[in-house]
Amino acid sequence: MFTLDLALVWLDLAGVFFFAVSGSLLAARKQFDIVGSVLLASIVSLGGGVIRDIVINNGPPIAFTNPVYLVPPLLAALLVYFLFSSVQRFTSLLTLFDAGGLALFCITGTLKAMTAGMNPVAAILLGVTTAVGGGLLRDITANEIPTLFNARDLYALPAFVGAGLTTLLWQVGLFNGLTAVMVALVVFAFRVVAWRRSWYVPLAVRGWHRAGTGASANSGARD
Amino acid sequence: MFTLDLALVWLDLAGVFFFAVSGSLLAARKQFDIVGSVLLASIVSLGGGVIRDIVINNGPPIAFTNPVYLVPPLLAALLVYFLFSSVQRFTSLLTLFDAGGLALFCITGTLKAMTAGMNPVAAILLGVTTAVGGGLLRDITANEIPTLFNARDLYALPAFVGAGLTTLLWQVGLFNGLTAVMVALVVFAFRVVAWRRSWYVPLAVRGWHRAGTGASANSGARD
Amino acid sequence: MFTLDLALVWLDLAGVFFFAVSGSLLAARKQFDIVGSVLLASIVSLGGGVIRDIVINNGPPIAFTNPVYLVPPLLAALLVYFLFSSVQRFTSLLTLFDAGGLALFCITGTLKAMTAGMNPVAAILLGVTTAVGGGLLRDITANEIPTLFNARDLYALPAFVGAGLTTLLWQVGLFNGLTAVMVALVVFAFRVVAWRRSWYVPLAVRGWHRAGTGASANSGARD
Repeated sequence: MFTLDLALVWLDLAGVFFFAVSGSLLAARKQFDIVGSVLLASIVSLGGGVIRDIVINNGPPIAFTNPVYLVPPLLAALLVYFLFSSVQRFTSLLTLFDAGGLALFCITGTLKAMTAGMNPVAAILLGVTTAVGGGLLRDITANEIPTLFNARDLYALPAFVGAGLTTLLWQVGLFNGLTAVMVALVVFAFRVVAWRRSWYVPLAVRGWHRAGTGASANSGARD
Repeated sequence: MFTLDLALVWLDLAGVFFFAVSGSLLAARKQFDIVGSVLLASIVSLGGGVIRDIVINNGPPIAFTNPVYLVPPLLAALLVYFLFSSVQRFTSLLTLFDAGGLALFCITGTLKAMTAGMNPVAAILLGVTTAVGGGLLRDITANEIPTLFNARDLYALPAFVGAGLTTLLWQVGLFNGLTAVMVALVVFAFRVVAWRRSWYVPLAVRGWHRAGTGASANSGARD
Repeated sequence: MFTLDLALVWLDLAGVFFFAVSGSLLAARKQFDIVGSVLLASIVSLGGGVIRDIVINNGPPIAFTNPVYLVPPLLAALLVYFLFSSVQRFTSLLTLFDAGGLALFCITGTLKAMTAGMNPVAAILLGVTTAVGGGLLRDITANEIPTLFNARDLYALPAFVGAGLTTLLWQVGLFNGLTAVMVALVVFAFRVVAWRRSWYVPLAVRGWHRAGTGASANSGARD
């Protein structure tokens, strides 16, 4: 289990870093200062894991007790500070980093729930909550409409797929560092391709169509 | 206690269902997709109880550990998906379902706090928090001004009445399935009648009047 | 330790009162009713401590279990109700009360974390979270852009200074009621002077300037 544990810590820290960059990018676009950039990076990158650890209810959240978790947000704010001016495509970049965080957190959140003794359904739920929680906090805090509810952007669905695959692999004993990376790649690809190709699911009401996409696109919204 | 416990589970699940419908209704009006509808229904219907269980600090929240709590949000999203097109009065419907959830959650939240050994004041507070928490999360997440703070809508007051009555009945040993339903009806009626008849309490500042309601209405705001 | 404990309870309650007034002031300006004023006062004044106690994960939050914590929000709502009409400079007043709460909470939050056995870095983090948490909840709930992210307002930095000084004094054994009050005054003065004199830190991106402050001011933003 040593290598798996170690792989998980690295996957978790990588996820923290990806989400932190998405937070600092949004802070930059919203004209926050450098302190606000560090804070928003921290909220989005550590928020999902803090919610996860509070729900598991087994001691203080690791983001507070282990100082190594502060490195990724600081690094992200520095990176954005020095490199943002050369950023050409802000939305693409934010989506890519957000997708990276989502792909890793749906795995580590699910695993942490299962190793804490929660049942498979609860583990999937908590994995998805961990994955979407940070981004939801980011958008609420920055007073944006949450990406999670953007009907032109599949967000929760890839996280559900990742949490489900992780649970399945764990149950049949095939979960390891390699399969973890494969699941992460599947989730990342699903999220990014869906966004690029404008895949979507039906609206919340049968027969309603997306506004402003033209009649031909609308008929596709029916599924 | 068996029948009371069973009654409470059903009251709680009914409250979850009512709030879930209010979440899916708002998702429909905001043009979220079906996944966003399920998610918003889950946040509003399970959020109050998750906050309650986190505050009680006695193991993971039941919404995560007991999969039966996922049925009402899924059901609500399905109902709204198939039936929303025929909805005539959106606001009335959302208010009615929201009032149903409020009426049941202020009871079950208060009881859960008392059976966890909290004092009566804490139990009332937690009952109100449970009752208004989900709706607050719904409105914050959907980027709306919270109903909780709408000065034309009594929202917290009926919840306080319900939590207070529940605590009183429990202390004098008269709390049972029947009195629980009666308290729920009182809270529901209070909330809906107050909304229909535009009852209100004074504004946060003495001498200030509600804008845009005409001079005669303003004088009534003075209390 | 008795006098220190007692001093801490009073400092904590004073912080609760200051934040509660800031909540009721905002409720007044947003035309909430008196119930909304009590609720927003409660959320902002008790929210930071509730988050702190949930993170520490050692029983229910004190704001729920000790009814004395309800007195400051009720008092604040009453004060604002009777005296607000005579308020001349709303923003100054809100900032002063908010600064008072911030100055006290970064101390009590840090101490509570250390006495719960958390490491110094975690204690500083939790102190800052306690101090900025209530104001963040206030602004999110009232649908405002959080003061925390206002690039023209140093907010988190004074809290970091206060939490750091508290940890330092505690570690070297010089923390007592007197030094606590001195740290609070330093944080309060830092926050208020920075706001009055428009001190700021660089924006989140190198080379970017604050909009609308003229060319001369912009060059100063580079630092």
